[in-house]
Amino acid sequence: MKAININQKFSLFNEHWSPKIIGELNGQDVKLAKIKGEFVWHDHKNEDELFYIIKGTLKLEFRDKMVTLNEGEMLIIPKGVEHKPIADEEVWVLLFEPSNIKHTGDVEHELTKEYFEKI
Amino acid sequence: MKAININQKFSLFNEHWSPKIIGELNGQDVKLAKIKGEFVWHDHKNEDELFYIIKGTLKLEFRDKMVTLNEGEMLIIPKGVEHKPIADEEVWVLLFEPSNIKHTGDVEHELTKEYFEKI
Repeated sequence: MKAININQKFSLFNEHWSPKIIGELNGQDVKLAKIKGEFVWHDHKNEDELFYIIKGTLKLEFRDKMVTLNEGEMLIIPKGVEHKPIADEEVWVLLFEPSNIKHTGDVEHELTKEYFEKI
Repeated sequence: MKAININQKFSLFNEHWSPKIIGELNGQDVKLAKIKGEFVWHDHKNEDELFYIIKGTLKLEFRDKMVTLNEGEMLIIPKGVEHKPIADEEVWVLLFEPSNIKHTGDVEHELTKEYFEKI
């Protein structure tokens, strides 16, 4: 049980679209990700998902609207809601979601990760 | 489903030791609290608890050590671990924890809250 410094954890990796687990509690993971470009449309059938922006500006596209998140803002995406993250410039994001969540939902894509590294 | 701005939410209240719910997902709450002074020793028998520091410096006293958290740092306290938060100056903290958690565990105290306001 020790302090987790978010910026220090972000300094440990550079790849995009590859969330790293920095903590676990109550069956949920706390993850960090660096993202840039467009992700794939997907949803999570059984899991709500939280995005919290540490650095940069993230656009979340939904079928009926676009939500823009700046540093210090968060959004909770309810299960079953299709979404597509878009980062014109690199964004650092903290995710909070159930430990068993699939990266791209039921969509198989070259960006799909089967395993999340713990850092 | 809309962006939640953390600083805007913090501007909505001033009282200490009175966490406010700003989001819910997967049976967990996201809460914000302003704290100052010493809290009561307590644990949560069945719930892990995450503290993430938005502003200030928080000391978390445990039976065997003290952990100091600065802005941008987090700590996950496993269920059953007694702790006592201490804030010499006002601290703004974000909490992730199960929705049914009791504020002071099984300890009844004048600081105990039976209800958490949603803002």
